[in-house]
Order: sequence, then C-alpha cells, then structure tokens
Amino acid sequence: MQRVADLDTPSMVVDLDRLEGNIARLQASLDSLGLANRPHIKTHKIPAIGHMQVAAGAVGITCQKLGEAEIFADAGFHDILIPYNLVGAPKMERLVRLARRVKMTVAIDGGVAAQAIAAACDAAGVEVTLLIEIDTGMHRAGVQTPGEAQSLARQIADSPGVRFGGLMCFPTKPAMGDFRSEATDLLARDGIAIDQFSGGGTGSHAVSKAAGCTEHRSGTYAYNDLSVWRAGNCELDHCAMSVLVTVVSTSCPGFSTVDGGSKTFTNDALQASGMNGHVREYPEIYLEKMSEEHGVLNLSRVAEGAPRPRVGEKVRVVPNHACGTTNLHDVVYGYRVRGARPADGSLTGDEIIEVEWPVPARGKIR
Amino acid sequence: MQRVADLDTPSMVVDLDRLEGNIARLQASLDSLGLANRPHIKTHKIPAIGHMQVAAGAVGITCQKLGEAEIFADAGFHDILIPYNLVGAPKMERLVRLARRVKMTVAIDGGVAAQAIAAACDAAGVEVTLLIEIDTGMHRAGVQTPGEAQSLARQIADSPGVRFGGLMCFPTKPAMGDFRSEATDLLARDGIAIDQFSGGGTGSHAVSKAAGCTEHRSGTYAYNDLSVWRAGNCELDHCAMSVLVTVVSTSCPGFSTVDGGSKTFTNDALQASGMNGHVREYPEIYLEKMSEEHGVLNLSRVAEGAPRPRVGEKVRVVPNHACGTTNLHDVVYGYRVRGARPADGSLTGDEIIEVEWPVPARGKIR
Repeated sequence: MQRVADLDTPSMVVDLDRLEGNIARLQASLDSLGLANRPHIKTHKIPAIGHMQVAAGAVGITCQKLGEAEIFADAGFHDILIPYNLVGAPKMERLVRLARRVKMTVAIDGGVAAQAIAAACDAAGVEVTLLIEIDTGMHRAGVQTPGEAQSLARQIADSPGVRFGGLMCFPTKPAMGDFRSEATDLLARDGIAIDQFSGGGTGSHAVSKAAGCTEHRSGTYAYNDLSVWRAGNCELDHCAMSVLVTVVSTSCPGFSTVDGGSKTFTNDALQASGMNGHVREYPEIYLEKMSEEHGVLNLSRVAEGAPRPRVGEKVRVVPNHACGTTNLHDVVYGYRVRGARPADGSLTGDEIIEVEWPVPARGKIR
Repeated sequence: MQRVADLDTPSMVVDLDRLEGNIARLQASLDSLGLANRPHIKTHKIPAIGHMQVAAGAVGITCQKLGEAEIFADAGFHDILIPYNLVGAPKMERLVRLARRVKMTVAIDGGVAAQAIAAACDAAGVEVTLLIEIDTGMHRAGVQTPGEAQSLARQIADSPGVRFGGLMCFPTKPAMGDFRSEATDLLARDGIAIDQFSGGGTGSHAVSKAAGCTEHRSGTYAYNDLSVWRAGNCELDHCAMSVLVTVVSTSCPGFSTVDGGSKTFTNDALQASGMNGHVREYPEIYLEKMSEEHGVLNLSRVAEGAPRPRVGEKVRVVPNHACGTTNLHDVVYGYRVRGARPADGSLTGDEIIEVEWPVPARGKIR
C-alpha cells in the first residue's frame, strides 16, 4: 500500500474526495440553472477524469487543441467542442478524421477559418457544427459586433460541409446578454436560429445563465487552484490538486527551498505579493519565488519558536494555476485520506494512493 | 525535402548555423580565458546538442535533475555535475546507480544532504565528488559564509563515499573572488584544497574568470533568447531557437493572435512592457500577452499601410526564456537556411529541415 508520503518528489497528487466533490457541486449548480455542462479537459488532460464528469451529467467535453480531442475521442468521448480557430491544411485533415467518428463542434471568428473548414468537410463528406466566437474583452479572438456575427453566420449557413450552431464566448460577461439579443434579431431576418450559446469560465456559470447561454464550459473547477480561490470562486479546501515537494535547503535565513520551481508549477499568474503557492502543511508559509527547479518558501510569518520545515521534509503546495501545472506532469497520483483529516492540513501518513494516472493529453500543443 | 514553412504549428525550430556559431563562440571565449566549459543541458535537453558541445571542447556537462543525468549517461556522457541538493532515499539509489557508470559530481549546501550522499555511496562502494554551493544573492540555496563552507568541507573530507572537490555558485558574482580566497585560507588550515570552483550563468564567464573559477557553466548560450539579449549578452541574430506559429485571428482591432501561448512559450520572465516575444518576420510586432493557447501580437508599431500578418500566415517567435520553452516541446526541428538570409528576417521557403530531434530530457522533474 503506497502513501503520498512515500512518493518521490516532485509529484502531482490529487485528493479524490475533493475532486469528486468539485465535479458533483458544479454539476448540481448547472442542473439547477438549467445549463448544459461541457467541461474543459485542459485542466486535467486525463480521460478517466473526463469520464467522471460525463457520468455526473456533462453533455460532452471541451478540448482546446486537436491533439487533445484525438486523445479523448480514442478514450470514448463522443461530443467534443473545440472553441478555437483551426487554421491550416494539416489541421483540416485531422478535423475531418475526427468528424468521421465523433460529433465535432468548432468555434471560429472569421471567414477564412470558416471557409477552409467548410471546404475540407464538404470534400470529405462530413459535417461539423460551427459556432461564432464573440470577444468579451480579452481581445484575443472573437467578432466585435452583432453585425459581424450576422455576416459570418450567413456565410456558414450558405456553406456545405458545416452547420451553423450558434455563439461561443470566454469568459462570459453580463454584456453578452445584449449581444445575444441583437444577434438573435439580426440572424432571424435571414431565418437563422441560434440553437447553442456556449459560455465559459470557472465561477462564471451564473453569468452564463443570465446572458442566455444554453451551456457552460468550466475547466479549473475540477481541481481548483489559488487563482480560483483568490477570485472567490472556491474554498481552499476545494483545491483538490497539489504538488508534493521536498525541502532541499534551509541555508538561506528566512527561507526554505523545495525541489519544485517553474518547471513544476509554471510562472502563471505570478502575484506581486509573492504569494504564489499555498503550503498545506504550513499555512503561514508561502511559495514566494521560483527558478526552474527551486521553489523558495517565505518563512517570515512563522511565529518565533514554531516548527519550520526541515531538509528532507515533504510538503504539498497548491499552485496558482492548475491547468499550466498539469501540462508539466507526465503522471498524477490520486489518493484518498483514510480516517479523519487533521485540522491543520498536515500529511498524516494515511493518504493512500488509489490510482496512478498518466496524463496523455499533456503537451498537445498542436 | 521538408521546409520550416511546411511544418504544422506550433513547432519549435532551431537554426543550426546559429546553434553551431553559439557553441563555437562560447568555447573560444572560455578557451581564451583558460576556463573549462561545462555547459548546462537544461536549455536544449537533447543529447545530440550536448555531443556538439563536447566535440567543441566541453569537459563534461551539467544536469539539474537525476532524470536528466540518466538520459545523458545513457547517451554517452561520462562526466556529469548536478549543482543541486539531492535529498531523499529514491534519489540516493539513483545517484549510486549513476556513479557506478559515470563520473558524478554533486553540489550540496548542508550537512544533511552531504551525510546522506556519503552514507549511500559508502554502502554501495562508489565515490561521488561533492562541491559546496555558495549563495551569491539569489537566496535559494548555498552557504552564507566561508566559515560555513569550512565546517561543511571538514564533514565531507571526513566522510567515506564522497570526495571534497571544491565550490560552486550561480550566477557568479564578483564578490565570489573574496569568498573563495577566505575559504581557501580557512580550508588550508585543515589541509583541504579547493580543486574545482564551478561558476555559472550565460554571459557571466568573464566574472567567473575574475572570481577565480576553474570552470564555467552556461546553458542558454546554445539557443539564446530575449532575456539573454535584453541583458546585453547576445545579438538578436544569435538567437538560434524560435517557435513557428500560425496567425489564427485578426478579429480584434490592433492585434493578431497566433496559435501558441503560455503552453508553448511559458510565462517566464514576463515584461511589464508587454514585449514578450520577438517576431522574426515582423520586427515591429511583438508578443504582448498570452493565454494558454493564444498569443496576442501587438500591431501598434506597424506603419499605416504596411503589411500585417494575415490569418493562415506563419511566423517565428523568439521567446523570453529558451529553457522553459524547451520543456514544453516534445520535438524540435533543426533547419539550415539555403542561400542568402533576407535582411528583414522573413521566411524565404529555403529553410530546409535537416533533423527532427525528440527532446528526451523534457519534463524530467525528478
């Protein structure tokens, strides 16, 4: 019987009770709102967790890259949304192959991408549903006005090989309600209906409901992380994922150094305050800065005489960004706590490894 | 014959002429200074490039993790330094196995790590050379005073299984010259000599020479990146590595979006100015911000009427941090430019792929 405390470090570990709780809680919220759940698998990149989400009630999944969709199609997922402009001949070939075996929906924001997808699907005799992405203020993709959505919807409706499905945005913002209403009216003049309106963002599902979305995409909620916690969208005890690390140096006064840095945690969402990781075993200590392989814990809030981490001691650090961290780990260990959880969050030795998951969709940049 | 322009995106690409030039240039500098060259492989994580460095004159290599050292030992490297505290029983077992087949040197900064390595090596009948790490101001590891170095050197000298080799620091700072002199005098009282003093940091080799180092560890110099360029330690034309990406959206006024973000480039060394990637084909455009899969190019410096990237166009982006970027890519394509290089840096179609390297030491977090 292997325990978390027995693992070599760094190792990504997931508290299965918390993971299951997070999956059940969001599903219940979406059910009560009448929104379909289409979780984004980028957070875990593990088919087994995707199957837990579908078993809880998800209607399908969201993948950001074709390489992720290929892994999940192989693993038995039948309804996949890629909310991302797919551009270029190799990607058209792969999309067509996927569309032959699963229901594929793709969100685009321009005529070039729409035309290329339509041509490839038409030539191959398959059909893909297209959604139109709306820019909600991130200025990274998305049409800017209902009028642009109307032109693009017309083009899609007139193209063989693709079916116009509706709209997509990330993250959902309240203004999307007005956008949707205007676009609905404009498209109605051409006899085009918006069947699907896909909103997104962990913690934004109530906004999606208010904006008239039909479904919601959340990713990080499965694990949660410090960014979700800082935004007020989870409790610290809802953070299911952490990375087990070992203290390797106490030579620098005021600090302890662990054997995981930005190659283990990423530099995503770095905080000016220096609070870049929550140490479960020492809540008053925080991950202040990172090199690639060094994580420097700040001890300034440890009371005089209170215990400090010793060289060789293992602690779990909850990172700023779960999805980026997942992308750095080839394996994840799922554990369950046997017996009572200690109030101070410490490792008791009763964290029993129940599953060792490879992360097959890690690193799928294409 | 495959060209860079034919690759699906994102793809990490390396200009082989520039890579070879970087390797030759640093080796010549170290030769003229009389410093041994022990390059850090973390930048490329590819044995074939390590062999190029050794063929140019490197005396051995530096790896940060045992997993990297195992890959490189398998690939024929005989002299490996790990400048990092190794802590914990699984790592002792792996260090001993490595020491049976290659010359292993490890830098430590405390008695616990030194004692555990000595005990493991002694029990196994192998010998590892230990260096003592000195803190040069990063406050992540390293003894603080020559007196601490003296105590630790005594402990090592008295321990079977390990041999005291000398000192190690990163990055080398001028003050290390005084530290070394004091430590040399203190250790001489115990009859202990400092044979090896290993300095480090791309661009810091002259400082290493001045501080009395015997060898120098550089990593990033092989590829170079925007951080090295900003520090004044390379020309932009010495940046050998870039990532080929495709423009996927031009919907947001003032921006173009490419299909690589922080999952392709990392968020390492983010600049307050927003200049987080140099676009080879459009020097006036820069990578301003990233989501995981979106890279947003700022077009504000493009002259009125000048060409702008179109959807479907491929460009190469030189990242902030080469080593972090390498860690996100499973494959790297090496190319050579046939014919003249265009003055504006554009892809000509004559960038011919010469080699496709897997990156076997990628993701070796343990």
